Amino acid sequence: MKRLSILLAVIGYFNFDSIAQTSADNGVVRFDEFRLPKKRETIHIPNVNGLTVLKCDFHMHTVFTDGHVWPNVRVQEAWKEGLDAFSFTEHVEYTPYKDDVKPGNLRSYELAENLAKENNLILIKGSEVTRDTPPGHFNALFINDDKNLVVERTKETDEKAIQAVVDQKAFIFWNHPGWKATQVKGSYEWLPFIEKMYREKNLHGIEVVNGFGFHKKALDWAIDRNLTIIGNTDVHNLIAHDYDLGREGVHRTMTLVMAKNRSAEAIREALEKGNTVAWSSKYLIGKEQHVRDLYNACVKIGPAYHEKKNAQGVTSKYYEISNTSDLYFELHRKSGKGTEKIILYPQSSQILTAQENQSQLTYEVVSTFIRSDKHLTIDIKL
Amino acid sequence: MKRLSILLAVIGYFNFDSIAQTSADNGVVRFDEFRLPKKRETIHIPNVNGLTVLKCDFHMHTVFTDGHVWPNVRVQEAWKEGLDAFSFTEHVEYTPYKDDVKPGNLRSYELAENLAKENNLILIKGSEVTRDTPPGHFNALFINDDKNLVVERTKETDEKAIQAVVDQKAFIFWNHPGWKATQVKGSYEWLPFIEKMYREKNLHGIEVVNGFGFHKKALDWAIDRNLTIIGNTDVHNLIAHDYDLGREGVHRTMTLVMAKNRSAEAIREALEKGNTVAWSSKYLIGKEQHVRDLYNACVKIGPAYHEKKNAQGVTSKYYEISNTSDLYFELHRKSGKGTEKIILYPQSSQILTAQENQSQLTYEVVSTFIRSDKHLTIDIKL
Amino acid sequence: MKRLSILLAVIGYFNFDSIAQTSADNGVVRFDEFRLPKKRETIHIPNVNGLTVLKCDFHMHTVFTDGHVWPNVRVQEAWKEGLDAFSFTEHVEYTPYKDDVKPGNLRSYELAENLAKENNLILIKGSEVTRDTPPGHFNALFINDDKNLVVERTKETDEKAIQAVVDQKAFIFWNHPGWKATQVKGSYEWLPFIEKMYREKNLHGIEVVNGFGFHKKALDWAIDRNLTIIGNTDVHNLIAHDYDLGREGVHRTMTLVMAKNRSAEAIREALEKGNTVAWSSKYLIGKEQHVRDLYNACVKIGPAYHEKKNAQGVTSKYYEISNTSDLYFELHRKSGKGTEKIILYPQSSQILTAQENQSQLTYEVVSTFIRSDKHLTIDIKL
Amino acid sequence: MKRLSILLAVIGYFNFDSIAQTSADNGVVRFDEFRLPKKRETIHIPNVNGLTVLKCDFHMHTVFTDGHVWPNVRVQEAWKEGLDAFSFTEHVEYTPYKDDVKPGNLRSYELAENLAKENNLILIKGSEVTRDTPPGHFNALFINDDKNLVVERTKETDEKAIQAVVDQKAFIFWNHPGWKATQVKGSYEWLPFIEKMYREKNLHGIEVVNGFGFHKKALDWAIDRNLTIIGNTDVHNLIAHDYDLGREGVHRTMTLVMAKNRSAEAIREALEKGNTVAWSSKYLIGKEQHVRDLYNACVKIGPAYHEKKNAQGVTSKYYEISNTSDLYFELHRKSGKGTEKIILYPQSSQILTAQENQSQLTYEVVSTFIRSDKHLTIDIKL
Repeated sequence: MKRLSILLAVIGYFNFDSIAQTSADNGVVRFDEFRLPKKRETIHIPNVNGLTVLKCDFHMHTVFTDGHVWPNVRVQEAWKEGLDAFSFTEHVEYTPYKDDVKPGNLRSYELAENLAKENNLILIKGSEVTRDTPPGHFNALFINDDKNLVVERTKETDEKAIQAVVDQKAFIFWNHPGWKATQVKGSYEWLPFIEKMYREKNLHGIEVVNGFGFHKKALDWAIDRNLTIIGNTDVHNLIAHDYDLGREGVHRTMTLVMAKNRSAEAIREALEKGNTVAWSSKYLIGKEQHVRDLYNACVKIGPAYHEKKNAQGVTSKYYEISNTSDLYFELHRKSGKGTEKIILYPQSSQILTAQENQSQLTYEVVSTFIRSDKHLTIDIKL
Repeated sequence: MKRLSILLAVIGYFNFDSIAQTSADNGVVRFDEFRLPKKRETIHIPNVNGLTVLKCDFHMHTVFTDGHVWPNVRVQEAWKEGLDAFSFTEHVEYTPYKDDVKPGNLRSYELAENLAKENNLILIKGSEVTRDTPPGHFNALFINDDKNLVVERTKETDEKAIQAVVDQKAFIFWNHPGWKATQVKGSYEWLPFIEKMYREKNLHGIEVVNGFGFHKKALDWAIDRNLTIIGNTDVHNLIAHDYDLGREGVHRTMTLVMAKNRSAEAIREALEKGNTVAWSSKYLIGKEQHVRDLYNACVKIGPAYHEKKNAQGVTSKYYEISNTSDLYFELHRKSGKGTEKIILYPQSSQILTAQENQSQLTYEVVSTFIRSDKHLTIDIKL
Repeated sequence: MKRLSILLAVIGYFNFDSIAQTSADNGVVRFDEFRLPKKRETIHIPNVNGLTVLKCDFHMHTVFTDGHVWPNVRVQEAWKEGLDAFSFTEHVEYTPYKDDVKPGNLRSYELAENLAKENNLILIKGSEVTRDTPPGHFNALFINDDKNLVVERTKETDEKAIQAVVDQKAFIFWNHPGWKATQVKGSYEWLPFIEKMYREKNLHGIEVVNGFGFHKKALDWAIDRNLTIIGNTDVHNLIAHDYDLGREGVHRTMTLVMAKNRSAEAIREALEKGNTVAWSSKYLIGKEQHVRDLYNACVKIGPAYHEKKNAQGVTSKYYEISNTSDLYFELHRKSGKGTEKIILYPQSSQILTAQENQSQLTYEVVSTFIRSDKHLTIDIKL
Repeated sequence: MKRLSILLAVIGYFNFDSIAQTSADNGVVRFDEFRLPKKRETIHIPNVNGLTVLKCDFHMHTVFTDGHVWPNVRVQEAWKEGLDAFSFTEHVEYTPYKDDVKPGNLRSYELAENLAKENNLILIKGSEVTRDTPPGHFNALFINDDKNLVVERTKETDEKAIQAVVDQKAFIFWNHPGWKATQVKGSYEWLPFIEKMYREKNLHGIEVVNGFGFHKKALDWAIDRNLTIIGNTDVHNLIAHDYDLGREGVHRTMTLVMAKNRSAEAIREALEKGNTVAWSSKYLIGKEQHVRDLYNACVKIGPAYHEKKNAQGVTSKYYEISNTSDLYFELHRKSGKGTEKIILYPQSSQILTAQENQSQLTYEVVSTFIRSDKHLTIDIKL
């Protein structure tokens, strides 16, 4: 009875294959129970003020410079992990595998271009200008070709190297400002070289989060100078070996880009406007207004559904507070009489209680940073 | 520096507590890393034709009959696991713990009523009329009191027992029709007793799924007689010991009730209209129209975003097919030239490819049952 | 072809059932994919100096006092979670459910006794003497009956209540010394009442860890007075709702009892000798020698298998350091030149590197406490 | 108080870093909560008849032929996933990336050799002789160099290609015999070419499991001709994208080699003796004696610890049956009166009940194959 066997097929992962294969006479059975299910995860974040929130990673490497994977793996990762857009940013000046792999700064792009299209992913041409520190590394997005990039790495050529990507009208951001400098000098500074780029409008953003590292001072620099806030993985290895993806809610570091639509053009426009928030681990890092808009789009509080008087005769009202997104929000009360601490895990809700006869409660969202030393503060109207 | 310690607080689950406690002088440190996060999971299912989809379980027991838990545990489970409504359905005629626990058929309701309200859960008064098999067990929902329920369990009193809940204008459904009968006789039948209840409009639904058991024949009976299709846990033990809740996507068996709003009244109205689908493991079980409406509400296919010609010169178009819900859909192709098998895991998407110049593909959704031997068939317009 | 169907059976969880059931004509299909696998987890801890390490929980409640479950649930939990022995310790003086549940201090024991035997679990008769704080609560293990326990709760009867369990030759420990006292006065003290019990040899141990709470001062008291160190869940709710059991490596709080064999007698002897370590979250808490013995039994370091000279011409040797147990050890280097930090997850290993020409490295095992302010320190001989 | 901050460090993954970093003035905070813990998993399998059971994968690819990763990733995978030994087996005749990557059949070995040593892994020189099908592909292990390998792929040179590895005294096995042949002809056969290799003692083993594919007929061929049974991943992509490693108990396909010690020499000796079992998904596949020895080493049954008489007056005895290993065993009863089905999950135990007055129960271990159509049968003595 054909139908029956099809029905059984669904009981247990991939059994259909197993049964089909086995009943065939070719004698190859599939043991697919331990296979990773093939799917594209949806990272759910509602639109923010009518803008779609695109999940982007603008910094990664492959075997064409010092990464550990062929470009197609980055496409697989981006698809599985729910990215909308990403860029290969191979080092211009650094190709440690050159004895084995023929250098080509945009070669990873060329090899992955069609695969990205088949997977409905936006692949943005990019490159990493990799100068000694100081001044350090810069990513240039939306470049056209790699012909005139400066491979030589000397103090003298630092400005020329930046100019080469400026000439291509690239969107340029300073990568992990605290890296190396910190290791060498225990700290890092806003450099004259950077100041010059900034004054000449050749610096458009700062990579405030690189992988698992949050460069706190850099957040303040970006905010004070209205530069775009970026968060990337800068992955060289496998995402699956760097991030604990088997655990619910774990995601790679990324930049949330609030864009008019899902296109490379809209991304560039949003980057230039600075419409971004960096998302790493449980944290949202960005300009106050953007973080607040994200919070408001994701967190909903319902009407009071219950009230109760305690032994002391104090009446509390009950509310359901919900996080409709895959983001994480942790609230600690600053003022008002109500629940002291609220953790809004992805797509879940909590009960909030508040004493009656108050107009609002005020919370600090400690899972956000709107400055190196400041969390978003929100009011809950009652 | 206060702010700093608050910031650190969020790094690592519950560290705030730990740090706070420790910096206090009372010498009690919290080791909360292994604690289960307290949250209410959102089971995401979009509205269906403007109706909200309520997650309901109308069959469970506590220590007041033969369950293993105090009533408050059922409230905890319902809240954590995202139910909207549930009923205690203690056995009228069976109280094995009576030497220790004072019987009271609605006592579990009384003890849980306020806690349910505090948790914003809809608690419906119910009871299980537990006759010998045949005819077996029946759940009566929306009863008012337990005063006149028939405790005596004899053939002679079977009808009287049903009448007692009919008199309370209860919504009555037949529980797990295949249980016991199957064990005794290897099969189960539509009984004269049941036929009489049905003719007299005293039977309103059938529990087609009970825990992990799908009573296939009963599905056809419900469909042919337009009775409401119900799925329940009938949990006696802990949900957490019966279901593998630690695994992503695992949920308890439930009835999805498509209702006008989130209220007991709307649930009753929907039950009487038969607006339900049983959801167990990966399966959706219900009347064709309801299962189709659910599918249409959850599964979206985008426009062709890419096309590719293969070696044989055949061009295929690429589409993204998405499951916006926490349900599971598995599609096997019946006709048309395109992807043979599509598994839509909760909140994820897949790539569908189809040869050009076709108007549609037809799939069987093998993770659904619209009859004991029939899956939903859907067309994908290209 | 019978064999084939059996073979298919194993592909996919529980498919055998599904196939069998379905091919049967009774029309009940099992959807068992989401069912929790029924198994008893082995908590692997090697013998320590020839003593077997028994996993014990000496503090829990059921509906017979203020717990939320029927006694059989505690047996299920103990079996699944790998305990060897446990005790029901119902409150003598506190029975909030008495309107519904007939009090009986050892009734939970009676109801579970046979089930525990069938599950090869050691069930020890116990009771919680629940006095106001101060002095607080005490568990009495190995009592015989509940006839002469003191139900009245007044200052005047505190001593009489203790005497009642002393008369039964119980093993008596002070529960969660910091509880309540801390809440009331922000701190807790070694009380005259306790001092008297101690002097009269009526106090044999202290519950240093209660659930997720580590009572630091109490650890020092136990060590300084050579009292037995105990860790318990004091679970009232479900273990599965308190602990995040779905996450690898998560375990309930327990007392590791190093005993001559797996018997109630050997447990009592070990408790009287003080051969215990409390295990909660990632932490091992006990007397230095016991924690050291456990560490030595679990952690092994192999011979140098490799060496490498770095750019500065310094040669490092490579060793594999393995944790053969399900415990967790985290080592931070205190002296010597080698790996700074080593996390030994359950049943896993790490690479340790050390500069040549050293005789040893010294580490602090920060996942242990041998006093409130002291971790175990261990030497690794090279 | 320094100690305190170190202590807090351990509460929450990697917090020590976070705290350290933050209290430092460099302004880079680590968000390491989502980082994958770095550890080498121990796959626990007891010794078998005094032989150590080594976990080996003798078939994988890198970017040097058609794999997707740099060689170092294979070392990472092997270390994390608990392998003892592995081989790169690049295609001799197939180098699709040659426009970008300079071919070199043993280049992946050269690049990984030191890293493997640092990780205490045994890296065996290997190569894949990749002829058209028929005859198909062969792996040659323990070769010395790639100078004289035959790159030309024509019928005429098939024998020469094999001879080239024979000349290097390689251990040679036939890869995935059902692959391609099956796809082309729906079946696969023992070929004259293979027969000749076999007669000339140039064929030493067969890859009976390749990734998730079990080549059933090939198992019988190996058993009937006493060829060594091999199971490999043949991974081209990432193990983490092929296998659902986040799920407990999931492992890559491998060959369990029962060897005198943990060395390349001992592995070769064991391979030549045929002391192997292939392990894929839940299945153990090998010669009856080896599978039986493994079963006996892993599964233990204790003495009867309890007995119970049922309503019919039949007495059953209770036994604990334990699986001390990370393997999986599923037993279905063939004869005797006792538990019908026993699933022994990794490192767990079950209760077995048997009627008294029987000498043994007989079970089929359906999670094993000792022929294409036969499971291991074992007796449990009572």
